[in-house]
Amino acid sequence: MEKLGMNPVNSCPLTPLGFLERAATAFGGCRSVVYHDVVWTWRQTFRRCLRLASALVSLGVSRGDVVSALLPNVPAMYEMHFGVPMSGAVLNTINTSLDAPTVAVLLAHSGAKIIFADPAFLSLLADALRLLPAGGQPAPCVILVEDPYYKEEESTTSDEELAALTTYEMLLEMGDPEFAWVRPATEWDPMILNYTSGTTSAPKGVVNCHRGIFLITVNSLIDWAVPARPTFLWTLPMFHANGSSFPWGMAMVGGTNVCLRRVDAAEVYAAISRHDVTHLCASPMVLNVLANAPEGVRRLPAAGKVRVLTGGAQLPVAVLELAEAVGFQVSHGYGLSETGGLVVSCVWKEEWNKLPAPERARLKTRQGVRTPVMAEVDILDSETGRSVPRDGSTMGEIVLRGSCVMLGYLNDVKATEAAIRDDGWFHTGDIAVMHPDGYLEIRDRSKDVIVSGGDSISSMEVESALYGHPAVNDAAVVARPDEVSGEAPCAFVSLKEASTVTADELIAWSRERMPDFMAPKTVVFRTELPKTSTGKMKKYVLRNLANDMGPTRGSTEM
Amino acid sequence: MEKLGMNPVNSCPLTPLGFLERAATAFGGCRSVVYHDVVWTWRQTFRRCLRLASALVSLGVSRGDVVSALLPNVPAMYEMHFGVPMSGAVLNTINTSLDAPTVAVLLAHSGAKIIFADPAFLSLLADALRLLPAGGQPAPCVILVEDPYYKEEESTTSDEELAALTTYEMLLEMGDPEFAWVRPATEWDPMILNYTSGTTSAPKGVVNCHRGIFLITVNSLIDWAVPARPTFLWTLPMFHANGSSFPWGMAMVGGTNVCLRRVDAAEVYAAISRHDVTHLCASPMVLNVLANAPEGVRRLPAAGKVRVLTGGAQLPVAVLELAEAVGFQVSHGYGLSETGGLVVSCVWKEEWNKLPAPERARLKTRQGVRTPVMAEVDILDSETGRSVPRDGSTMGEIVLRGSCVMLGYLNDVKATEAAIRDDGWFHTGDIAVMHPDGYLEIRDRSKDVIVSGGDSISSMEVESALYGHPAVNDAAVVARPDEVSGEAPCAFVSLKEASTVTADELIAWSRERMPDFMAPKTVVFRTELPKTSTGKMKKYVLRNLANDMGPTRGSTEM
Repeated sequence: MEKLGMNPVNSCPLTPLGFLERAATAFGGCRSVVYHDVVWTWRQTFRRCLRLASALVSLGVSRGDVVSALLPNVPAMYEMHFGVPMSGAVLNTINTSLDAPTVAVLLAHSGAKIIFADPAFLSLLADALRLLPAGGQPAPCVILVEDPYYKEEESTTSDEELAALTTYEMLLEMGDPEFAWVRPATEWDPMILNYTSGTTSAPKGVVNCHRGIFLITVNSLIDWAVPARPTFLWTLPMFHANGSSFPWGMAMVGGTNVCLRRVDAAEVYAAISRHDVTHLCASPMVLNVLANAPEGVRRLPAAGKVRVLTGGAQLPVAVLELAEAVGFQVSHGYGLSETGGLVVSCVWKEEWNKLPAPERARLKTRQGVRTPVMAEVDILDSETGRSVPRDGSTMGEIVLRGSCVMLGYLNDVKATEAAIRDDGWFHTGDIAVMHPDGYLEIRDRSKDVIVSGGDSISSMEVESALYGHPAVNDAAVVARPDEVSGEAPCAFVSLKEASTVTADELIAWSRERMPDFMAPKTVVFRTELPKTSTGKMKKYVLRNLANDMGPTRGSTEM
Repeated sequence: MEKLGMNPVNSCPLTPLGFLERAATAFGGCRSVVYHDVVWTWRQTFRRCLRLASALVSLGVSRGDVVSALLPNVPAMYEMHFGVPMSGAVLNTINTSLDAPTVAVLLAHSGAKIIFADPAFLSLLADALRLLPAGGQPAPCVILVEDPYYKEEESTTSDEELAALTTYEMLLEMGDPEFAWVRPATEWDPMILNYTSGTTSAPKGVVNCHRGIFLITVNSLIDWAVPARPTFLWTLPMFHANGSSFPWGMAMVGGTNVCLRRVDAAEVYAAISRHDVTHLCASPMVLNVLANAPEGVRRLPAAGKVRVLTGGAQLPVAVLELAEAVGFQVSHGYGLSETGGLVVSCVWKEEWNKLPAPERARLKTRQGVRTPVMAEVDILDSETGRSVPRDGSTMGEIVLRGSCVMLGYLNDVKATEAAIRDDGWFHTGDIAVMHPDGYLEIRDRSKDVIVSGGDSISSMEVESALYGHPAVNDAAVVARPDEVSGEAPCAFVSLKEASTVTADELIAWSRERMPDFMAPKTVVFRTELPKTSTGKMKKYVLRNLANDMGPTRGSTEM
């Protein structure tokens, strides 16, 4: 028995790139990508990606080089996910809402050789390129991805500047549609580089390999029970953890990718009807926008036919209830850039359908259980390193183990060692509790926990109560220094249109729902709260504001 | 970039065993296994499998030991698929229709430490144990898997013999339901040993590892688009390539396993109705039995609701048409024990639905395209080693590459090297053509091709024409020596009840449908044709009969 093992046939590296080659045969004439009047078939997409890979190689790109993209969810962005790694390069999609200094930091850090850019982000890119350190590596070569559906008047780039650029379609023309794509030398070869976006100000470059991406892709399809040939609407930015691995997943199941430049509720509902969309992913923020769209806009072809996958640290019960009332069939999970997609999900139990709606929503807003490809997930007490009891109240850090976990952070040994520990766990920095039924629920990012007296307060628990108030649109709770207890909860709140509520009323509302020490001592009203492009609250901004206010005293302030 | 790679977190071995642990939480209260009045939940199945693993360890089973099972599709057979490898042992399921000398050969070859046996096969096993070579390794310890639903009168084992045996439930009682199951040291550790059954008389021991089984399991679920929580009827023997990996697949998606001791058309249709079965696998032979059941029996709750996956070298068009007329939604694929399940499948194209039924059936009886987890599939010319043209007529050998391919044959370096070649391909020995659309179609086992004059005749093509005749129940075509052309086709045919046809008529029927040289020169009628328990024709038996007849002369014989 022991003589048998890896051999020349079964050691062939796992990679999601072969899904596209297969799709060209198995789904050849089916629609692969749709964008306004642009309709590609899987046969065409395969050939276009081979052209892209071949052209990149002829531009001098070689194995392990970084190729970046500053693109919205247009067809070229989809093609990047195959064409770039098929050249042997590592794909780096950049969050398009970053500012020029940050983009410059990322480009300098990754050493990108080539960057594909949308006309809307050319001036951002030009600013970033000017900020690159002098005397460093050569600036990346810029390729313009033209878009006939982009409204030119928004552009700040001159016609001359535009004319000087190589375009994406010119590049594809150069490429060979019969190119023998570059297979990874091993399944551990880097394939993807994603910078973690902005809940802290120090971006880290997450590197995932072919094996990890292959596995998170099959994991996501099976966990969400994606059927054959779905129609997938691209409401989730592909620059966000590569759209949770679904670019590769759609090639595996022969789905149709419906592209969208931007998420606007009216456009989303129109696209759902026009293309018979069956599946979409949305952050809780986007789900909130869709669920709160005006009544005339908020129409689905049939209730329960559109399946929505949402994830993130916080899915407010109110948002979920609204979305389900509209008719979306919502699934909920949890993942990180470091895992390439969702690795925990709230597997739904039939018996829960009998419960009243608020109870159902409360159960579904829990993050859930590990997805099947992950080996293990646990919640560890940060002091003892032991599993927390399954009591639904003891907080600890979520740790993960399994093949979807990243290789590490690019050129950042310290950050890598802090996350990937010798104890065999990836430490997420997310604080959660384990319920008696084995479902975990996130309580906070570890740095967002408020320590009041000796007690830890989950900022999310307080926020959750605030979201339940009918006037509240958005809520974020952070620590503010407190003379008595060290820290006390401080709430930043934005209200729904034409709604009013006083700080007193919100504090009273909170005290009815939690122990006094957990209720906010301060409530600050804002028209809008600061968020990243993927809808995560920029709590460090609010924490700075709360610090600047100075310490609270004995009583509550408003 | 190059400093990043495998690390203590992402190098955790792939194994399907964790699916059960997850199922105990995610699907804890859902039905896992149903058999008459026995109903287990996933929580219970997990604990029973841990008891089994723990008891095996306490019996002295250690990592890499072989544990065998001689069982029909009863609940214990399902539990073997987790409990045995959870002890670190390698599971060897034995085809229950083998004879005692063959079972003895397998037990001696595998060195099984323990064998679980059904009462129906105790006397077979006793005979086999008596045939074990003297002075070899100790005979395996026999554990009796009692079955209250087995009719005792069929048994030939005495009450005393039965009373002396340890029973499965006694063993589970000994086990610890909180046992920390033995994880594989590496994902390449052997997990499964299956002996190839009987189309030749020399069984080979296929060894698959944890990684391979993990991957074929996800492959099968995605390729067949298995939804969450299906109800799966066990019509395919689990001893046949471990039921095409679906024991592990059901734990991954939280399905219900409906067990069946034997396949009887009336029982199958009754089980479908009683349990709301959504999915089942069937060999073409079993599909034939189901499709030809008496009208009163042949009833489905709703057309298209029961999905059937069938595979094997030959799916007659007539069988497929009948099965679809009954209302089964049939998918078709191809795999081998060496790949652990289906690795090629006939992905259906919507545009084909518009074609007339015979054309649809003709397209669906092709084996198809590679399933997504397999890296590559090709058809090679046996002389040049190059891909055959995509012309639908040039025959070559099917070769495969990818992670689902076995480690090798146990203690058989020669056979392993013949199959797993240094060219990086697994050579299947199956002969096929590649159609212009990239779908492959099997024409024969390489040893079944008939060489007439200079031409190769696919025995399956001739059989396919014979199956189209309304009187034909079963047909097998083999080479018979021929004075003029070396070999000529000789058909063995069984007829449907109350049908008649002459040899002359069948030869004329064939000649209308193929070139004269391909039509059978001899037709032999039999009440039944010799088959293996999984429905494969024992062609070597027929070939011997045809040889014994001596050579055909110039004209056809009947």
